[in-house]
Amino acid sequence: MTTENPYQKFSNTFDEYFNQSLNQFPKHPKNLYEPLAYFLALGGKRVRPLLTFIAADLFDKNIVACLPAATSIELFHNFSLIHDDIMDNAPLRRNKQTVHEKWDRNVAILSGDVLMVKAYQELAKSGQETAVELQTIFSKMAVEVCEGQQLDMDFETENTISIQEYMEMIRLKTAVLLGCSLQMGAICAKASQQDCTLLYQAGEKLGLAFQLTDDYLDVFGNPEQVGKQVGGDIISNKKTWLLLKAFELADAEQKQNLQSWIAKKDFQAEEKVNAVKEIFSALRVKDFLQNEIDRYYKEAITLLKQSSASAEKIHVFALFAKNLMQRTK
Amino acid sequence: MTTENPYQKFSNTFDEYFNQSLNQFPKHPKNLYEPLAYFLALGGKRVRPLLTFIAADLFDKNIVACLPAATSIELFHNFSLIHDDIMDNAPLRRNKQTVHEKWDRNVAILSGDVLMVKAYQELAKSGQETAVELQTIFSKMAVEVCEGQQLDMDFETENTISIQEYMEMIRLKTAVLLGCSLQMGAICAKASQQDCTLLYQAGEKLGLAFQLTDDYLDVFGNPEQVGKQVGGDIISNKKTWLLLKAFELADAEQKQNLQSWIAKKDFQAEEKVNAVKEIFSALRVKDFLQNEIDRYYKEAITLLKQSSASAEKIHVFALFAKNLMQRTK
Repeated sequence: MTTENPYQKFSNTFDEYFNQSLNQFPKHPKNLYEPLAYFLALGGKRVRPLLTFIAADLFDKNIVACLPAATSIELFHNFSLIHDDIMDNAPLRRNKQTVHEKWDRNVAILSGDVLMVKAYQELAKSGQETAVELQTIFSKMAVEVCEGQQLDMDFETENTISIQEYMEMIRLKTAVLLGCSLQMGAICAKASQQDCTLLYQAGEKLGLAFQLTDDYLDVFGNPEQVGKQVGGDIISNKKTWLLLKAFELADAEQKQNLQSWIAKKDFQAEEKVNAVKEIFSALRVKDFLQNEIDRYYKEAITLLKQSSASAEKIHVFALFAKNLMQRTK
Repeated sequence: MTTENPYQKFSNTFDEYFNQSLNQFPKHPKNLYEPLAYFLALGGKRVRPLLTFIAADLFDKNIVACLPAATSIELFHNFSLIHDDIMDNAPLRRNKQTVHEKWDRNVAILSGDVLMVKAYQELAKSGQETAVELQTIFSKMAVEVCEGQQLDMDFETENTISIQEYMEMIRLKTAVLLGCSLQMGAICAKASQQDCTLLYQAGEKLGLAFQLTDDYLDVFGNPEQVGKQVGGDIISNKKTWLLLKAFELADAEQKQNLQSWIAKKDFQAEEKVNAVKEIFSALRVKDFLQNEIDRYYKEAITLLKQSSASAEKIHVFALFAKNLMQRTK
């Protein structure tokens, strides 16, 4: 992937600034800041700050002006992961212990809290001219991410969720953050109001395409490339797009079959995954999902093309985004 | 108290605006916003936003300009209470169930998170001129409050804490918020840089005096006036100023006596409270604490008098602050 990444320089620039920012975090109280140093060093793809850079570059602007905004996006994203991991009772993140596992729940709550404040502090470094505008869209995004996480938790115990409701949940939980990442880059690049809005909308659509791709790969991905056992969502009865679509399309017998697998407490993981996948195949939900992913991806690119960004740069970005999605198919 | 409150009008103005703000909170997702509506309706004294108003009034400025800042302070304070209650495993707040008790821990984490964002959103309403400055001191305060809470938790399992360390903990955990409340009022009133700093410093000193008063009242207060059983800190071995001072002054026998009460798992609450109070009496820690409280209070007033605020208004505020502290002695 590294060799085909046209934005490697951006990533390097970001990493350097980001690591400098982290080094400036206080060291004391140790139980507050050590977990952050640990968690932020786990890395991750850092796609979101990269999107901020890419957006500025689309308008031919120097990415340096975006550094604080890109950093605040990455800090906020990590804040949300630390708190989500508590709520989801997740033992691992990026194959390492989560903060609440390695320390404890209270440490994870509080170091998450301080990380959110740090995100705002970083954002404030953007210069008075843009800081207020950036903060306005950042806060709106932050509220929506919390709302999305709440809906996600609510859905666990709700029986009937429509695909429309599911899409709204993933829009809030993950897509608005990608929209905000692109929009912030456009704002820092002093793009027009219209261009900023188009970038936000494109980011949201891309975010939906990315999240649906995650749903897809969890069932149909190549385990070696996905880097984890496939079928986790099926095993845990997660109400993903695939399952909701299957219920929408299933006949009475298929519905009962799905229900019985969901209700089973005692089962062989592989057997359950295969059985549910078989129902998915019969209903062709894989193809339907692939269509949806393509549709959102194309909508994103169409929105980008409506902006005043250069066609050549949009083309490079479109390929890069497609590549991100196909990384493991 | 109502009849002797010279700031009743301020409180009324704040309550009206605050309740309007709360009414504008979304209603959905229910599990995110209902806990906030519940918790924020529990009331409390709302001293912090009042301090913001008082600071503006000290400089003869209309309090209307402070409404967003005062509101953000109160929202942040409630965010910290919701999360602190989880961390402290507290079942009750203001004699009602805490959020994590009434709903669950995840709901309390997430609704706390969104409340912090709401505090920033409210702050942003202050107008571009002051918003960035307000946000800078607000974020600094928010980080410090998190640090103070971490130190407070750390102290539970640490054996040797000095009074100096304790004072630094309560400075961070509670006093900086009062400093920030006054400073924000001064900033909204367009007071000079020097006046803003003096107000901050005065608020910090007052915050220390208030917190030490809480320590005092928990042991020596009149239960009917304090509104709760006294001696809670003694029963739970909380390392308050009184206990730390007692250890500092105690001879070998008194130290051993204190240690044995702290180590006891099985005891009659009243007997323990009386025994520890007796040691406190022998060591005169009550008088020492009263002196400390007076000292911080006087330092606060001295700082205020160094500002350009009117002497008459400082006098009214000084009496009000003293009254707040003596409410239950």
